[in-house]
Formats: sequence, structure tokens, C-alpha cells
Amino acid sequence: MSWRADVLTIFPSMFPGPLGESLAGKAMEAGSWSLKVTDIRDFGLGRHRSVDDTPFGGGAGMVMRPDVLDAAIGSVADATLGSVADKRPLIVLTPRGAPLTQKRVRELAEGPGVILLCGRFEGIDQRVIDARQAEEVSIGDYILSGGEIAALVLLDAAIRLLPGVMGAAISAVEESFSAPLLEYPHYTRPAVWAERAVPETLTSGNHAAIAAWRLAAARQTTKTRRPDLYNQYIASGAPAP
Amino acid sequence: MSWRADVLTIFPSMFPGPLGESLAGKAMEAGSWSLKVTDIRDFGLGRHRSVDDTPFGGGAGMVMRPDVLDAAIGSVADATLGSVADKRPLIVLTPRGAPLTQKRVRELAEGPGVILLCGRFEGIDQRVIDARQAEEVSIGDYILSGGEIAALVLLDAAIRLLPGVMGAAISAVEESFSAPLLEYPHYTRPAVWAERAVPETLTSGNHAAIAAWRLAAARQTTKTRRPDLYNQYIASGAPAP
Repeated sequence: MSWRADVLTIFPSMFPGPLGESLAGKAMEAGSWSLKVTDIRDFGLGRHRSVDDTPFGGGAGMVMRPDVLDAAIGSVADATLGSVADKRPLIVLTPRGAPLTQKRVRELAEGPGVILLCGRFEGIDQRVIDARQAEEVSIGDYILSGGEIAALVLLDAAIRLLPGVMGAAISAVEESFSAPLLEYPHYTRPAVWAERAVPETLTSGNHAAIAAWRLAAARQTTKTRRPDLYNQYIASGAPAP
Repeated sequence: MSWRADVLTIFPSMFPGPLGESLAGKAMEAGSWSLKVTDIRDFGLGRHRSVDDTPFGGGAGMVMRPDVLDAAIGSVADATLGSVADKRPLIVLTPRGAPLTQKRVRELAEGPGVILLCGRFEGIDQRVIDARQAEEVSIGDYILSGGEIAALVLLDAAIRLLPGVMGAAISAVEESFSAPLLEYPHYTRPAVWAERAVPETLTSGNHAAIAAWRLAAARQTTKTRRPDLYNQYIASGAPAP
């Protein structure tokens, strides 16, 4: 059975968007994954199909109602409250969430799929998150206008890992990320461009020297840009440079 | 003058995608920002409009050529090599980059705009990044199929901060993020849902108690989910809980 993604959103027309093209689009056509988009507003209340209300305790913005969201989730997860029969994890995209990592993406890609709930406005009533045992996930330390583009990020990252989607090319990239260092810089033709030559070692044909050059470059980049990752790398017992 | 975004990509039809709707779409219609998408393949070489080649030093995947990318950048930045006359920063979306932060997003939103270069395949020849003094930015610790969805993330985050796009609602959210704690949980009507009541304090009308409850909740969530942020918060001299 193929990997199934459900997305709950008040902007259904944002999907599949960029996922309808390139790798993800071809993988969808090939049946490697499927996408069902549900408009939360279909479960909205009253004449205006209202999905939100003012926050208890005051403050700016509106909060998405638990009853409306729960009905939307129930329509795709076929679940009773508090026990999701659907084995797919329910993920809420929110800046309050735990950071998305490549490790979590890999786990999700190896599972049956995901149900993604896209928050909008100020946030989502916490009770529906608790009752549905949803996983709160953040794609980074910045604020988006809603969870929709974050959902695209999570889906794109997972889809490229599905069997048959990327082929052999993937293994090298994966390996490099789990190093855990940032990747070394890349060079291709022309060998000299705008008076800049490719680093000599890379054209030497000496495989050991090339590997050493790349490792040193990856370490240096990581040390400069991501001291947090670099310290983890050193702490994990990697030989100091 | 409005905020100007240029995107360089081999998948131009992915744009504006989700940015054509909701907040960003309305802001574009209102003239708060503009988007120009350039197809890198228009600068490709030969009959097949080739944009990539094999990496020097070996390895999986293909690398985008510096000459092709430089021509594409030159077509939008109106620049001579090494000195971008266009005052907008040139940003390359890549997992090798420095992490995108809300602080950097705010700086970008306050500037004239951005030129975004979307990497594909294994990566981009480093010489064009060096020559154009491009800023390498990563949206998170996971791997995407390309820079396009990362560009959508960066643009969405910046656009919501442009003058007039979000109105008053934004200040509260911003404030909470610069705390630097994760947001407290939100609650709205109904007051009791599925036998779950909103926390009593939030309906008490006692503003000091509500503020204290929210701060405690924000601290607890941050401590659990983001020990890194929590330690920064404590180190910054915040009163311990």
C-alpha cells in the first residue's frame, strides 16, 4: 500500500502546489504516495462556517475551535476520541512544536503516512491536541502565516525518502547528513571559471586525498555555521581535526 | 517602493504557489510585494539547456554549473561579478546554510527584498556562491528535494512582516517569540469540550494570574521541547521559575 498523506487546512487549494511537480509529483503519479486534502471549513459552525473564536484569557488573534477541528480530524482518521484507530501519526505544524529532524522524517517515511493539521490565526485550542494525542512539530525558529507551507516542507522531505522515488543518489546525501556534519562544498565544470579554479585536490584523482579534503571542509563549515552540530560531532568521539 | 522578491529556479511553475493565496496573495494584489520568477534553464547550455554536470572529485548526483547560475543571477541582479549592484541580498537555500531565524527574517523584511537561488540535485558549484557573496541559508535540519519549498518558507515568513500585511495582531506574536520562549497554549470556546474544561485561571478575569499562568506554561513547554532555547532564556538573566 502506498504512503498516505491527509492534510487538514482552511486553504485546500494550496495543495498539492509544488508537490504536484518534480520528484514528488512524479512519485504521486507513479502511486508511491497519495494526498487527500480536507477543508476544515466544511466542519465550521453556522452560516459563516466559523472555525475560530477569541482566546480565553484575552490577547490578540483568534484561536481555532476544538470541536470544529475534532470533527475534521474524525472525518479522515476514522477514530474515537483519544484513541486514533488510524495508525498514522497526527501532526500539528506549529512554532510551539518540537523541531523537525531528518531522523523524524525518516521514521515518518518508513511508516504508513501522516495526518497533518495546519494551524492558522493565533493557534489551535490545546484540548484537541491533547485529546487526539497530536504531535506538535516546528520546522524552524521563525513564524509563518500558517501551517500550510510547513506541511509542504514535511511532505517533501518524507516523499523523497519513499522507496523508488530518488534511487541511488539518495544514499550519499543521507550518509553525509547523519555524519552529523554539514555537507562539503561542490564543484563541477568548467574547471576554471571567472579565474576561479576548482580546488586542486579534487582533480587529482587521489581518492584518499579527496576524502580527507572533503571531511576537513565539512568540519570547517560546520564549525563556523553550526557550532551546536560541531560540538555534538566532537562529543560523539569523532577525531578532532 | 514595494518589497521585491526574485526567485531563480528550474521549477518556475512552483511559484507563487501557496503565496498566491491568503495573506501573501492579498499583499501581492495590494502591491506590498512583488515576485519575479526566472527559469534557470533559460541560461542552460546547448540543445538540452543543461544546467548541471558531474562533481569534481566524484560522488553521487549532479552539481549546478557556476557559469549557468551566474548568468541567471546577472539577469536579475544587474551586477558585475563580485559586486552586486542590486542592494538585495542573494540567498541560496541549502542544508549547508546558516539556520534561518526570526531575527534574520525581520531584517530581510525591513530591507528592499531578496534574490533567492533554489538549489537542486546534489548542490551548487561553490565558486558562484563565493563570487556573488551569496548567503547560504538553511530552513531546518532535514533534507528537501530542492530549494523551492525553502524559498516559499522564507518568503512567507518575511511577507507577513511587511507593513500593513498583518495589522495589529502581529505584535503580540512577535513579542512572544522574542521572549525567547515557545508560546503558551491557546484555548477558545466552548468552555467545556469533550469533558475537558479550559484551565480555570484563564476564565477568572484576573489579568495578573493569567499572565503568570501563561508564563509558567510557556516556560514548561520550552523546557521540555527546546532545552536549547530554555537555557538561553535562563542564561539571559530571566528569573528562574
